[in-house]
Amino acid sequence: MSGRRKPRIGVCGPSTASSEALVLAEQVGTELAQRGGVLVCGGLSGVMEAAARGARAAGGLTIGILPGASANEANPFIDVPVVTNLGEARNALVVRSSDAIIAIAGAYGTLSEIALALKMGVPVVGLGTWQLRTPDGGVPPIIAAQSAAEAVEKAFGAIRT
Amino acid sequence: MSGRRKPRIGVCGPSTASSEALVLAEQVGTELAQRGGVLVCGGLSGVMEAAARGARAAGGLTIGILPGASANEANPFIDVPVVTNLGEARNALVVRSSDAIIAIAGAYGTLSEIALALKMGVPVVGLGTWQLRTPDGGVPPIIAAQSAAEAVEKAFGAIRT
Amino acid sequence: MSGRRKPRIGVCGPSTASSEALVLAEQVGTELAQRGGVLVCGGLSGVMEAAARGARAAGGLTIGILPGASANEANPFIDVPVVTNLGEARNALVVRSSDAIIAIAGAYGTLSEIALALKMGVPVVGLGTWQLRTPDGGVPPIIAAQSAAEAVEKAFGAIRT
Amino acid sequence: MSGRRKPRIGVCGPSTASSEALVLAEQVGTELAQRGGVLVCGGLSGVMEAAARGARAAGGLTIGILPGASANEANPFIDVPVVTNLGEARNALVVRSSDAIIAIAGAYGTLSEIALALKMGVPVVGLGTWQLRTPDGGVPPIIAAQSAAEAVEKAFGAIRT
Repeated sequence: MSGRRKPRIGVCGPSTASSEALVLAEQVGTELAQRGGVLVCGGLSGVMEAAARGARAAGGLTIGILPGASANEANPFIDVPVVTNLGEARNALVVRSSDAIIAIAGAYGTLSEIALALKMGVPVVGLGTWQLRTPDGGVPPIIAAQSAAEAVEKAFGAIRT
Repeated sequence: MSGRRKPRIGVCGPSTASSEALVLAEQVGTELAQRGGVLVCGGLSGVMEAAARGARAAGGLTIGILPGASANEANPFIDVPVVTNLGEARNALVVRSSDAIIAIAGAYGTLSEIALALKMGVPVVGLGTWQLRTPDGGVPPIIAAQSAAEAVEKAFGAIRT
Repeated sequence: MSGRRKPRIGVCGPSTASSEALVLAEQVGTELAQRGGVLVCGGLSGVMEAAARGARAAGGLTIGILPGASANEANPFIDVPVVTNLGEARNALVVRSSDAIIAIAGAYGTLSEIALALKMGVPVVGLGTWQLRTPDGGVPPIIAAQSAAEAVEKAFGAIRT
Repeated sequence: MSGRRKPRIGVCGPSTASSEALVLAEQVGTELAQRGGVLVCGGLSGVMEAAARGARAAGGLTIGILPGASANEANPFIDVPVVTNLGEARNALVVRSSDAIIAIAGAYGTLSEIALALKMGVPVVGLGTWQLRTPDGGVPPIIAAQSAAEAVEKAFGAIRT
């Protein structure tokens, strides 16, 4: 029966972002909700808020896994705040609670979420995000996308079923 | 706008419980969903599953904050699994993500949730749960209830607004 | 080789406590260090600080597993602060990092640590702490002690080897 | 008095590593202990074990912040296991408990620790580790080192005092 749960797509990105990144995030939120996905994010401002706004506009459910001690820090488009009080350690929960993540732009917190997803085997789609080379010059398996629609399509496609 | 979010009621209780406790838990789930609440619980079996079954039967949303590393451990009535991989430390998240908790029966995990709720100032309603005396013989402020309906009514009444 | 590590004894108790409890805590710290134990505690004031003062006076090593984001919140008798930024969820780490715990007096945080220890199978020695009855009237296996020396002796005796 | 605590240096690197990386890690452990530092690491094998072996050989204290539920998973050179049972979320604790970190080689877990350190403002020294470019092509402030001695010297130099 768990196979019938809605897919959970994590959207990761900074709390302060360019207007271009915010537009992408909102489109990603709308697209994933239209496809029947639940939005998982860190629940704060910036990319997280834009994605939640987009998802809710399309009638989707939005989950915000917050770093602080109060539900009041959730942005207004979060339906269910999960109040962790774990600080940065909550990033691991955002990733692990998602069937796939989409990383948009990105500051250091986003980088940590990409790294944790790669470690956990959670698929990562990148939209204008970090460029990474291993110590040996290798390239980690981040799935590149050029648009919100492509990112969401690739995220759904990458979910292990 | 956050004031318009649905109230989140945590239901805490053991993964193995008497049939009496399971009936109570299911009734609590149904009642809280009928009043427009979101069910928050630990996502596993026993009291958690019975409460989720009851909430879903009444059309409510169910959140399971899981201790392990996989969404597969969620019971079949959980709409949104939050996969923490934090072990027992996740109990703090169940409590902090709830506007009030209802403790039913109770093994040691439930006792830890009651204690954390008392510490965090989250209201606790008890339905046949632990009996506690402080080192000085004092009685902590657990709100006693005798029925599922009373427990849910008192939980909603205790939410700080 | 891990069998040659020093035993780790957790001392749990409130950050504000009676002078009687503080004297007991300091004696417990001294006794456990004299027996070759490492003190594990929550690193803050009150019972935690008194125990650390006692342990250090006897030449023992003191570990403080802190709830906040900075080592600066550790009391002055902590040799190694572990800075978790996990809030109350850090209580689970204090317990799990200890081979046995000694609970002295106790507010709600201490109660949560007793509960988590009982759940994890970590032995609990109580010195004037919470009195607990299960929903069925049963008494959980907290080992009672009347003095600091007895508490430490019973804690070492209870360690699973 | 907290100003008199020994500096804590985190050593981050994978549990499986090249012999070159292991030699570097052991030298780093030895150097940091000779300078009076406490080693903080993830407590497992590979780079973590080599660093602990080196630190202990120089008489240093070694702390292992473990991801699992048992102290038994600590490598034999860990003096004090901190048993978190937090899975990958424990990486945040390794970083936050360190005054500076040295990243050696590196798989995905190491990348997450670099990212978290950058976010938290904990200085990062890199020894043959990840190469990172921000979405805008910028280079994050990882302090490069070419030898174990240089890495340790730069780590101590970077500690905010």
